[in-house]
Amino acid sequence: MRHVTIYDTTLRDGAQAEELNFTSQDKVRIAHKLDDLGIHYIEGGWPGANPTDQKFFEKIKGHTFTNAKLTAFGSTHFAKTTPENDPNLAGLLAANTSVITIFGKSWDLHATTALGIPLERNLELISNSVRYLNERVDEVIFDAEHFFDGFKHNPEYAIQAIQAAHEAGAARLILCDTNGGSLPSQIAKAMEAVQKALPEAQLGIHAHNDSEVAVANSLEAVRLGATQVQGTINGYGERCGNANLCSVIPNLELKMDIKTIGQSNLPKLLNTSHFVSETGNLRPFMRQPFVGASAFAHKGGIHVSAILKDSRTYEHIPPKSVGNEQRVLLSDQAGKSNILFKAKELGYDLGKNDPTVDKLLKELKQRESMGYEYSVADASFELILQEALGKPLNYFHFQNFFVVDAKREEDPEPFTEATVIIEVKGQQEHTAATGMGPVNALDRALRKGLERFYPELSAIRLLDFKVRVLSGAVRDTGGTASFVRVLVETGDQTDRWTTMGVSHNIIEASWQAVVDAINYKLFKDDSRRSKKS
Amino acid sequence: MRHVTIYDTTLRDGAQAEELNFTSQDKVRIAHKLDDLGIHYIEGGWPGANPTDQKFFEKIKGHTFTNAKLTAFGSTHFAKTTPENDPNLAGLLAANTSVITIFGKSWDLHATTALGIPLERNLELISNSVRYLNERVDEVIFDAEHFFDGFKHNPEYAIQAIQAAHEAGAARLILCDTNGGSLPSQIAKAMEAVQKALPEAQLGIHAHNDSEVAVANSLEAVRLGATQVQGTINGYGERCGNANLCSVIPNLELKMDIKTIGQSNLPKLLNTSHFVSETGNLRPFMRQPFVGASAFAHKGGIHVSAILKDSRTYEHIPPKSVGNEQRVLLSDQAGKSNILFKAKELGYDLGKNDPTVDKLLKELKQRESMGYEYSVADASFELILQEALGKPLNYFHFQNFFVVDAKREEDPEPFTEATVIIEVKGQQEHTAATGMGPVNALDRALRKGLERFYPELSAIRLLDFKVRVLSGAVRDTGGTASFVRVLVETGDQTDRWTTMGVSHNIIEASWQAVVDAINYKLFKDDSRRSKKS
Repeated sequence: MRHVTIYDTTLRDGAQAEELNFTSQDKVRIAHKLDDLGIHYIEGGWPGANPTDQKFFEKIKGHTFTNAKLTAFGSTHFAKTTPENDPNLAGLLAANTSVITIFGKSWDLHATTALGIPLERNLELISNSVRYLNERVDEVIFDAEHFFDGFKHNPEYAIQAIQAAHEAGAARLILCDTNGGSLPSQIAKAMEAVQKALPEAQLGIHAHNDSEVAVANSLEAVRLGATQVQGTINGYGERCGNANLCSVIPNLELKMDIKTIGQSNLPKLLNTSHFVSETGNLRPFMRQPFVGASAFAHKGGIHVSAILKDSRTYEHIPPKSVGNEQRVLLSDQAGKSNILFKAKELGYDLGKNDPTVDKLLKELKQRESMGYEYSVADASFELILQEALGKPLNYFHFQNFFVVDAKREEDPEPFTEATVIIEVKGQQEHTAATGMGPVNALDRALRKGLERFYPELSAIRLLDFKVRVLSGAVRDTGGTASFVRVLVETGDQTDRWTTMGVSHNIIEASWQAVVDAINYKLFKDDSRRSKKS
Repeated sequence: MRHVTIYDTTLRDGAQAEELNFTSQDKVRIAHKLDDLGIHYIEGGWPGANPTDQKFFEKIKGHTFTNAKLTAFGSTHFAKTTPENDPNLAGLLAANTSVITIFGKSWDLHATTALGIPLERNLELISNSVRYLNERVDEVIFDAEHFFDGFKHNPEYAIQAIQAAHEAGAARLILCDTNGGSLPSQIAKAMEAVQKALPEAQLGIHAHNDSEVAVANSLEAVRLGATQVQGTINGYGERCGNANLCSVIPNLELKMDIKTIGQSNLPKLLNTSHFVSETGNLRPFMRQPFVGASAFAHKGGIHVSAILKDSRTYEHIPPKSVGNEQRVLLSDQAGKSNILFKAKELGYDLGKNDPTVDKLLKELKQRESMGYEYSVADASFELILQEALGKPLNYFHFQNFFVVDAKREEDPEPFTEATVIIEVKGQQEHTAATGMGPVNALDRALRKGLERFYPELSAIRLLDFKVRVLSGAVRDTGGTASFVRVLVETGDQTDRWTTMGVSHNIIEASWQAVVDAINYKLFKDDSRRSKKS
């Protein structure tokens, strides 16, 4: 079985993505997560390029990794300096990693335009830098920047550039499609020429996704003999991103029979993907292959009835092999089979002709036309199901809420206070609370009134809070008066659940979601108790 | 020059995407947008499958298209019926389109498991259905569902299935990678076998993106002779989506020298992409190749200084060729060159050693650490720039706001009221307004106080309102107390601008963004007036 090493550059190239910002501490945590996944090389950053990367290399000193080698990334030495007195190379060595990756120009245009030096001098920079570093660390990796564009415009020079690195002792030559403009057929042509010129070199591929073929380019290079793939988790990176390792890895392992991190590590992919997006404060991409929430989600009625017979009919791999799972979506297109499936998932065995199903379908369609989207809020769906079954929840009865948000010139933040009146077990409770904002104040006031009756509520924590402006409605009514959908994720010691609210008024929408979250908690605990007894 | 036809299935396969919902009227508007882009075939839906598609075909009757042929999609006839009395085929004909696309099984597993019929009978369904429809419409397209999986498991049968459609008169045979599990090398192998078996057939490709290679698979099929590509705008579709036409089209046109919609139509791609995501109420994907907001956005300092010398150094195509544009991002990694570039874009020619630049860089880094993200809020950035230049805006002075949101048991929605105290041109204004929610009420009260002094404010409209919970903060403080970032997009007769606010309190964050939006409008109008005089 062939082996291919995986080189992750999430912490360096990935951090170039728009809206993505890692702190140095975030980077330390991600590095350990990548090591745990079985990644072979982790590019930590460019020492000296910015304060975050500088701090990262200081913090990570002394940490040990099980699978991965940490690498520092930087450029060849400046044209005006020698390796011995170059600040770039000194910074790289100071990072104290056993592997150093340096990039150099392999496109003649870049040497003459971006660097403004003669082509011969550029080859010297590469050769000198690789040789100098190679005497001081275990392994030097050479990233041939813009290799494929260079190869297209001046193939001889592009090959001379990597040859210079090879002869100076670079352990691996990485062919970079820096601008992401190359197609698989161009990758193949260049790979074949390089293998002819440098038959014993260890080659790698570093692809960007500007043409939406970064994964295919990486697979093509491996098919033709590359022994390393560079990429990032979730494909984060400059512009359209890098080759997505969350897709490259399972494609190589499950479809091309090539060992990378090993099949036993594959189920960690989903969690690693979420960890990186969450840490980087980016919303996960639903449609992301393999690890996206939609990757094994079925909406069409025909597909749903087929997967109930045999999953292979509409799934290219078993979802669990990458840590993901099969989902059936409720929607406008949903037939009864989706509802039956969903109800069954929740433990309700409804017959196809049960009048509850018709009632529920009608109720869902009506609510979805208002902007509710039950595919993402299982707990709210279950509460509606209870109602359709004629068993509405009666833990408390709402009577009144009142929220004030006030700010004076001299205040850095507004003052917020909420009062709530509810009836619980025949008693009226009138409570008040302040908060970090109106929703927080309402949430706290409501719980104050309930916890006396339901002490188990003290265990719940709000984990996430999402607001989505429904843009269809924006067009109708304009900006600050548009419909919003609020999703709240809540957890206790054992479970996590998502609830939802929709309104013109963000406070009302949030209130609905918070009320559902609390009702669901009480209902769930009751159901468990009654199952036991 | 080779020609390849583009077949869009956004309205049918695209509508299967999670969270995507089109009304029948949305679908009519999208169909015209696709026609205007130069698409050759528009698959409108599956008549009879759901109420939306049914209504769409009723509404679209009598509409004319310049470039596109409208197609109706459906399955081969039921095993229990004949073509003459089959409800599917009758529904297809009733849609009254000149082209009909039907799909049939080409994977033996599906015929036996999903349909539960003998393999021979499945070939009859294909043959009978194609022949029956072909006598009644101009063109029948046959979608060979699961062709590549079928070819892998039973190549003879897969080819028999498309041969049956070919012999019955199908104008085109579309090879579908329905589960999206195939890699380009598998596409190539199958394409070669099909061409050998059916040398005169017109072949097409319908790829799904479950392996993140749908675009590459489509290009590979075209390279080997396919004359039609099926896909969707933005790659929307079941699970991970379909081949993304916004990438397939420019790759074919600009890189493979193949004519599809024609290069003169390419700049409409960006607008078409936004139109479809906006209509479908999905947030555009920033990192989307070619048409994404990040596709030509540069963050790293080195890249920025290089593109200022020559765009080709870090851009694979000219952004304008697909209707997009170059952007330079401000960020933690931003050096002075980004700020100088951004300021220049806004018309401020700052010298590299201007003390304003240092001051601004420091201010931006400090605010970005709090969650502000100026790369998406140009207008808020310009206001900060004004302040750094020592010219803060003094259109009005904030003193006080007070918002109440109250709901009683019997109210369907809460009652909301805001009061605002500001000082304008030496006068105190105290105003009050109700609203559809707290932010709307505040916005209305503020404008009430200002419009008397600045009548031009009556021209502005809030176009969009986005709330992003900063999840880094969620971890620290928990759900309803987390930091939120509000983005507000505002427009008048001539411009659109985006402003921002960040706070624990959603009302405070919204208030900041609304205040910036109003200040920016007044400032912008003043600048124009002073330029004229």
